[in-house]
Amino acid sequence: MKIASTPDPPYYAVIFTNLLNNDSEGYSEMAELMESLVINQDGYLGHESVRDGMGITVSYWDSLESIKKWKMNSEHLLAQKMGREKWYKQFKTRICKVERDYEFDSNFGVI
Amino acid sequence: MKIASTPDPPYYAVIFTNLLNNDSEGYSEMAELMESLVINQDGYLGHESVRDGMGITVSYWDSLESIKKWKMNSEHLLAQKMGREKWYKQFKTRICKVERDYEFDSNFGVI
Repeated sequence: MKIASTPDPPYYAVIFTNLLNNDSEGYSEMAELMESLVINQDGYLGHESVRDGMGITVSYWDSLESIKKWKMNSEHLLAQKMGREKWYKQFKTRICKVERDYEFDSNFGVI
Repeated sequence: MKIASTPDPPYYAVIFTNLLNNDSEGYSEMAELMESLVINQDGYLGHESVRDGMGITVSYWDSLESIKKWKMNSEHLLAQKMGREKWYKQFKTRICKVERDYEFDSNFGVI
């Protein structure tokens, strides 16, 4: 996993924090399918995802409209329904406007 | 690790995505110290942190002023300096305004 390369702010972030149920059969296949779909969505800018018990996935978008279109994507709607009914014990979604960012690379210093 | 319980939006989030160097001696002790300090900062609302190779830590705040005060905390400044000089291969920090959020709990449904 790489740190997402995103344009200069402002842009949008969706912070999705989640805990899975003990039985998460089928989840990883669905997660892979969603990943293959999201990267081709209009307005998608990148994402970062880590899980170690709790999962945090942050996706980056050019606008609130693009976030809404992805939320309403028919295959994604099915994944969301299965997530609520089967996979997720708990989750929280936060829709954010990224106002500032900065980065550091040990080869180059603060950028 | 639990999903952070945060007040109704708007509030602020700092998304800190990072990759460690192979030699990260002393890092986990410093991370624990920073965690013990941040929870007592003015305006701190909660945080979520996961690492599996890449690390994502999201902290939540009541205002940009509170974020700035934490950034300028003297012990935190030292940790940031050691992070740049020693521990981090790469990181990106994004300062965000949380505009909307919603959550799901399998015991209660969408909240």
